[in-house]
Amino acid sequence: MATKSRFLLQRAVSGLRAHAAWSTSTLSPGRRLWRPQLRHVSWLRELPDVLSLSLRSHTCGELRSHHLGDKVTLCGWVQYLRQDLFIILRDFSGLTQILIPQEESARHLKAALCDLTAESVIKVTGTVRRRPVGQENKGMPTGEIEVLAEDVEVFNVCRQLPFEIKDFIRKSESLRMQYRYLDLRSSQMQKNLRLRSKLVMKMREYLCNVHGFVDVETPTLFKRTPGGAKEFVVPSREPGRFYSLPQSPQQFKQLLMVAGIDRYFQIARCYRDEGSKPDRQPEFTQVDMEMSFVDQAGIMSLVEGLLQYAWPAENGSLKVPFQTMTYEEAMRDYGVDKPDTRFSMKLVDISEVLLSSEIEFLQSAVSQPGGSIQALNVPRGAVRKETFPVVEYMDQYDENLVLVKEDNTLKSPLKKLLSVSATEELLKRTGAKPGDLLLITAGPLHTRPLLGSLRLQCAQLLESCGISLRNPSAFHFLWVVDFPLFLPKEDEPGQLESAHHPFTAPLPEDKQLLYTEPHKVRGQHFDLILNGCEIGGGSIRIHKASEQLHVLKNILKEDPSLLSHLLEALDSGAPPHGGIALGLDRLVSIIVRASSIRDVIAFPKSFRGHDLMSRAPDLVSDEELKSYHISVRWPTEEGEMK
Amino acid sequence: MATKSRFLLQRAVSGLRAHAAWSTSTLSPGRRLWRPQLRHVSWLRELPDVLSLSLRSHTCGELRSHHLGDKVTLCGWVQYLRQDLFIILRDFSGLTQILIPQEESARHLKAALCDLTAESVIKVTGTVRRRPVGQENKGMPTGEIEVLAEDVEVFNVCRQLPFEIKDFIRKSESLRMQYRYLDLRSSQMQKNLRLRSKLVMKMREYLCNVHGFVDVETPTLFKRTPGGAKEFVVPSREPGRFYSLPQSPQQFKQLLMVAGIDRYFQIARCYRDEGSKPDRQPEFTQVDMEMSFVDQAGIMSLVEGLLQYAWPAENGSLKVPFQTMTYEEAMRDYGVDKPDTRFSMKLVDISEVLLSSEIEFLQSAVSQPGGSIQALNVPRGAVRKETFPVVEYMDQYDENLVLVKEDNTLKSPLKKLLSVSATEELLKRTGAKPGDLLLITAGPLHTRPLLGSLRLQCAQLLESCGISLRNPSAFHFLWVVDFPLFLPKEDEPGQLESAHHPFTAPLPEDKQLLYTEPHKVRGQHFDLILNGCEIGGGSIRIHKASEQLHVLKNILKEDPSLLSHLLEALDSGAPPHGGIALGLDRLVSIIVRASSIRDVIAFPKSFRGHDLMSRAPDLVSDEELKSYHISVRWPTEEGEMK
Repeated sequence: MATKSRFLLQRAVSGLRAHAAWSTSTLSPGRRLWRPQLRHVSWLRELPDVLSLSLRSHTCGELRSHHLGDKVTLCGWVQYLRQDLFIILRDFSGLTQILIPQEESARHLKAALCDLTAESVIKVTGTVRRRPVGQENKGMPTGEIEVLAEDVEVFNVCRQLPFEIKDFIRKSESLRMQYRYLDLRSSQMQKNLRLRSKLVMKMREYLCNVHGFVDVETPTLFKRTPGGAKEFVVPSREPGRFYSLPQSPQQFKQLLMVAGIDRYFQIARCYRDEGSKPDRQPEFTQVDMEMSFVDQAGIMSLVEGLLQYAWPAENGSLKVPFQTMTYEEAMRDYGVDKPDTRFSMKLVDISEVLLSSEIEFLQSAVSQPGGSIQALNVPRGAVRKETFPVVEYMDQYDENLVLVKEDNTLKSPLKKLLSVSATEELLKRTGAKPGDLLLITAGPLHTRPLLGSLRLQCAQLLESCGISLRNPSAFHFLWVVDFPLFLPKEDEPGQLESAHHPFTAPLPEDKQLLYTEPHKVRGQHFDLILNGCEIGGGSIRIHKASEQLHVLKNILKEDPSLLSHLLEALDSGAPPHGGIALGLDRLVSIIVRASSIRDVIAFPKSFRGHDLMSRAPDLVSDEELKSYHISVRWPTEEGEMK
Repeated sequence: MATKSRFLLQRAVSGLRAHAAWSTSTLSPGRRLWRPQLRHVSWLRELPDVLSLSLRSHTCGELRSHHLGDKVTLCGWVQYLRQDLFIILRDFSGLTQILIPQEESARHLKAALCDLTAESVIKVTGTVRRRPVGQENKGMPTGEIEVLAEDVEVFNVCRQLPFEIKDFIRKSESLRMQYRYLDLRSSQMQKNLRLRSKLVMKMREYLCNVHGFVDVETPTLFKRTPGGAKEFVVPSREPGRFYSLPQSPQQFKQLLMVAGIDRYFQIARCYRDEGSKPDRQPEFTQVDMEMSFVDQAGIMSLVEGLLQYAWPAENGSLKVPFQTMTYEEAMRDYGVDKPDTRFSMKLVDISEVLLSSEIEFLQSAVSQPGGSIQALNVPRGAVRKETFPVVEYMDQYDENLVLVKEDNTLKSPLKKLLSVSATEELLKRTGAKPGDLLLITAGPLHTRPLLGSLRLQCAQLLESCGISLRNPSAFHFLWVVDFPLFLPKEDEPGQLESAHHPFTAPLPEDKQLLYTEPHKVRGQHFDLILNGCEIGGGSIRIHKASEQLHVLKNILKEDPSLLSHLLEALDSGAPPHGGIALGLDRLVSIIVRASSIRDVIAFPKSFRGHDLMSRAPDLVSDEELKSYHISVRWPTEEGEMK
């Protein structure tokens, strides 16, 4: 738009006719027709008016027997032709059968229709008729009627396509991505994108209209954050200077609280360069919220209300408040900080039971720091041969399996080491019954995550052989709270790093530990889990500059000057504040039961970060890179850089 | 969030207490309290509930005399302290006077309050009282009452700030940008951001809820478009391969139409690297829409309805349809394709009048291709010395000025060349009266843009000396239609380029000219103008692959393989479609009468593209650039690249 005006000012332009091509007589009726409708009807309607302003009078999914005799105009794609008699026309809303007239007088119309290929785009006008008796299609919402074609306009005849647009046609992921504009025509992808749009709209209504949140757009061309190895860089026209695409609007949303915006939200595009990771996208979307003068409970209520309000009606209603569990409870009972609570199979601590039997290797395992003996009961796990992979898997970890036999005796190397009373106690504590499989691990704390991961694998194995564990239509939301604020660094365990991010405030009762035993501090952080997937993480933030400085400088040993603008802001009248971000792509994918977030994103990248349709990323000429003062380091044959 | 779970699985974590820090007893009341309120009241309320979930009971702007005696809790910033007697507390909604108790029993409270600095953040609980007679403040919405403090919590004491948060304090643009989080506390910036959020929300309601549009997010990491010199590049981890940040979702929205999405919109982040241009931002936002099975009139109606629906009530209501003008009319009457129609001062073609007087240099000017003589009447332009700059300006262009004297005679070098009847005719056609100034230009077509630009300069000059021309609270929307589809290239006038973009469809009646005289083709493009600023541009797109290929290959002489995915898509059943994009930043800035779009963007870049707060763009180490296979070309002292 911008260059045009300049051109027009500078150039001579000739040969234009004096008057608008679309005269008032041809176009005003359409414009007049719709507007009163809008004012008096549509704004008050429950459902959006998907016909407004369009060339169609009805959608392909709405005609029923009460439309008999109506003259209608439909626009859509040719799903298929049948015996030169019918065309099945499709749009986003459904299918309608078009009857091709067979009379000699309609031969031009018939020829035009019979020449169409599948996926050609037409506008058809005709009259709604009842289908002849016996030809109704109960499986089709419009199956009682058909439209006798009286006029057709062919907008585009479709070439031979790489795959048919039918839900049952299987196509490879890469073919789907390469021809994404065809893939999106499938009813499942149409449903996914439309549900996503509605969900986000409801979320906005809730945040803006119910709670007075302010939608603020924050920059995506930002400064590289300290240690931001996963941030894409964007060269500027100044030599050596780069913007960075941020992983989240974290700093900006805190600055907005300092700025007195009070209630901020944004459906924010975020960027993370993780190379090739399955089911990750280099750009993704989060529902980002922040509030001032609020506590953790307030933000949790906000999110519960948000999801309840926006929840798609077809998935039932959500009960709030959601279940809450501490981090320690989650690790204790499920061996993971994002438990799938759709099924039980909790870990059971059987240290006491087994220690009483004085088995030496178990005693030594328990004597390690945080050591314990844990059991997981896999119900009916011993009666199916499909659970053998579990047995094999456990074997490689040198752990112990116990099968419970019909007579309640055990089949296990452990058997002879256990007294009758210990066996009874074991069965009692784990609730194991004949046919069940007990997985037993012994060792330091990390023995629980191992069992937690086996719990999920066993669940999948059991379900794959027909044992129902999880209700496939269940949505189990769960809050996990009271996370540790810091964790030992992986490569330098004497040093602490933030469990989430350095802005999380400690629990009030742990605040003093920040200055004495920081590794013991729990943070005001809370994760939202849905069906065992983490879909959001939030926290109350540090709002005092001195505390933030202490965390950065003394605990995390980071250079605070890199965040000087944030520290200065906290010192300039920062209110107490907190917020949360929900992963929108993941949330939607769970709601529509998609196997990958790629199925809820219109144009996703492949797992290698490629756009297979346009072939991005692409080569850029050295000349074009010059204005950004960069050049490519091509790898040499030895794999080194020039 | 991602790394955490992994850590937790692998590490031993000790010392966590068993139970949640916020026990049910302390937090449940808050959560319980709010939820029923929400269900039964808030969702039905007209106004958002800005108190929900928060520590405050009221905002600082809402207390009136009907609150007398109420116990209230306010949260906010100390605007100022007065005589150790009062604190004026501010939040986003307004100001409230807090009375500091003076009794000895309240000495701790008094000390705490009197120690506060301006912009400190507190929570205050107290009782609403009537101000003593004579101390009411009629200029303050809460001026009838004050709150007697009974309890205070100091969240943060504020340091000395670089500027005071008062609307009348003037600060430099760079100081405002460096401390943006303080600048945003001003009532004007609060208003701007909040109005923007509401406007966008209403737009979304209109598009989603009224017309069934689908909000689809399109990628911002995309492939470089042919000749996309203004696109930022983003290096990938594959040597030599770059993503590009697109200038608009143009290709994606057309592909969504091919995909059967039918009605798409997105509040889309767009990127344009224009180096240092005043009032341009490297990232900006457009309201992006596209529809299938629609014509130009349909899209224009859509946008009119959109603006009417979303228009802020405080600015009155919008009348639709908007005025429409062809490109030719705009150039003829205003000398520009985006006329400011808030005032008249139209260009008048006086070729006929002056040619009759047989002045040689005028005749020669008119004999050039498209030549004419144009006049602009500046009412009262000759009576003020402030219009002298206009005179000077015209002089440098070697054009002619005519001052109309009291007796209706002219003061001008032209005077003696004009007959009495020609003079009379001149005054009649231009409507010039005594005291008016006539600007006259003669030459080929571009003489009109010159006069069009002088028209705007004169308007500013007249207004700056108090002559009212334009109603400052007027909003004049205007459609300009029937643009030429192609223009001669600036550096190669024998060659055509797209006036807007290569996807615009020709007017149906000009379609055949595409194959014979493409320079004569008018496009189905339409610009939306508000008060002389272009705030949107839309078009009906080419939906046939063969026509698109002809335009790219034969007319524009571009390599069609670069857009092969789009051409393939058009050949795969593309519906007729069209759309528009509105520049949101510009639109909001006009609505709030901001002088720059920086005043409606929360964290804008300086005109050099810098974030003055965080100092982006920033240096990135060579080591970090290695994974992107790029290195910096540092300029040498001679200004050349290494």
